[in-house]
Amino acid sequence: MDNLLTIFDFVGIFVFAISGALAAVRNGMDLFGIIVLALMPAVGGGTLRDLILDQPVFWVEGTQTIWIALSAAFLTFLGARYLEGQRLVWLAWADAVGLALFCVVGAEKALDVSGSMLVATMMGVVTGVAGGIVRDVICNEIPFVMKKGEIYATAAFFGAGAFCLLIYWGVPGPIALWLAMLGAFLMRAGGIIRGWTLPQALH
Amino acid sequence: MDNLLTIFDFVGIFVFAISGALAAVRNGMDLFGIIVLALMPAVGGGTLRDLILDQPVFWVEGTQTIWIALSAAFLTFLGARYLEGQRLVWLAWADAVGLALFCVVGAEKALDVSGSMLVATMMGVVTGVAGGIVRDVICNEIPFVMKKGEIYATAAFFGAGAFCLLIYWGVPGPIALWLAMLGAFLMRAGGIIRGWTLPQALH
Amino acid sequence: MDNLLTIFDFVGIFVFAISGALAAVRNGMDLFGIIVLALMPAVGGGTLRDLILDQPVFWVEGTQTIWIALSAAFLTFLGARYLEGQRLVWLAWADAVGLALFCVVGAEKALDVSGSMLVATMMGVVTGVAGGIVRDVICNEIPFVMKKGEIYATAAFFGAGAFCLLIYWGVPGPIALWLAMLGAFLMRAGGIIRGWTLPQALH
Repeated sequence: MDNLLTIFDFVGIFVFAISGALAAVRNGMDLFGIIVLALMPAVGGGTLRDLILDQPVFWVEGTQTIWIALSAAFLTFLGARYLEGQRLVWLAWADAVGLALFCVVGAEKALDVSGSMLVATMMGVVTGVAGGIVRDVICNEIPFVMKKGEIYATAAFFGAGAFCLLIYWGVPGPIALWLAMLGAFLMRAGGIIRGWTLPQALH
Repeated sequence: MDNLLTIFDFVGIFVFAISGALAAVRNGMDLFGIIVLALMPAVGGGTLRDLILDQPVFWVEGTQTIWIALSAAFLTFLGARYLEGQRLVWLAWADAVGLALFCVVGAEKALDVSGSMLVATMMGVVTGVAGGIVRDVICNEIPFVMKKGEIYATAAFFGAGAFCLLIYWGVPGPIALWLAMLGAFLMRAGGIIRGWTLPQALH
Repeated sequence: MDNLLTIFDFVGIFVFAISGALAAVRNGMDLFGIIVLALMPAVGGGTLRDLILDQPVFWVEGTQTIWIALSAAFLTFLGARYLEGQRLVWLAWADAVGLALFCVVGAEKALDVSGSMLVATMMGVVTGVAGGIVRDVICNEIPFVMKKGEIYATAAFFGAGAFCLLIYWGVPGPIALWLAMLGAFLMRAGGIIRGWTLPQALH
């Protein structure tokens, strides 16, 4: 099971990095811009989480995350012409796996450090979506996750919150982890397949 | 007097959060966007201050600030239709109370930690306005406090700087706190009532 | 030689701050906006580096950097009319000196702390260009260094990476520092004089 988590982690980082690299390509950025924007969603959220929790930043401790994100950036750079023509459905699904993992793992780390379910849930969401927000802000766009559209951040919120509740109810860590990840993934799947959305305020 | 400070703190957080939530509503964001943008002005400045000073982030230590900001986000979400029609003069005044408090309290904390009046004044301004800058940047706008317009950040600068000077001159802490807050509030009031502005560079 | 480094540091901070202040003037910001945008390139990159490396933020420890940046902001505010009319070639060259210094010094600090050449190279680039990215994002523009155009971030990457390699190969610190700075400067010079660029992805 731990091997599966590692695979999910690598897939998630890789796909999150592609989302940033593609945004850079769409905005006509050069190779440096592609690398910076690939790193944002891949490591940005976890970096902010670690800074807020006063923990060593995870990719300073072990740099394989950076190498994966850099690989994704270079492959996107080389294959941009091919990728842009596609509907990239597989990308949305791989992204959902990454989101489900990151929100739960982020919540787990924050719960360990702070002991607060509220902080842990927030940090789970931050891990999952903060880097994507920075990506969109750099591209001069209203962040995708904050606009009316398919459920995304809500799935991260649900996964992080469910993990905290399951731990609070005494469910063993690994089971809580997989259940919460499944929940987040299914909710995001509802967004992809059914187009589930979150309400806007009434005007 | 301490009770009054706590009340001011709650009012400030609540009103700062409303400013973010309303910006999200204006930009057609969904409930998640409203929550994120409410949190930015409410806790963003203090978070940046604590990171720079290498102190534990204040809302990780005690989460009531987050709950207040979340309440403001939900109430704005529910009441957006009503709030948008109004001129919201009371909001500007409650915001001025929050600004006056945050800039002085931020300066106090930074002066304790760093001992430098310059750092303390900067951190007072950061506490008061940095979150609002992030709010505006996410909304894809030139930050309100940096444009020519009613005095706002200058009031935070004045309050933070006045507090440092009063402490330096040996004025007891609580008196310095209230005097500096009053100064910041009156300067901001001049912006609201009289439209005081700061100069732009000559072109 | 150490005196020369100090002079380069002051020149770099001053010129980086001018770049921010001029961006603020172009966007019609008031004096506060000019100060904030001057501080971003001058101290933003180093601040992010220190936060990520969990080191005390350099300008909290000693505030002369802030004073230099504030001076640049005020002088730009007063002289904006004159500066805007010019082609400012000297500014590009002084900026290149600052870039060459900051990327290498940033890499040196990160290599000391983390021992990783990858982290050190990244932190060198962050020290050199992250503040300028924030400056452009606040101005609501796609960051200059990420767009197709004259080599800039690449020079920082080259300088930081060369420094790490030279140290790895056993070259004494001061010699590695000056060689890497020279390399970064020459590469940036190629951008200024010859218009060297980095490729975009093929569409």
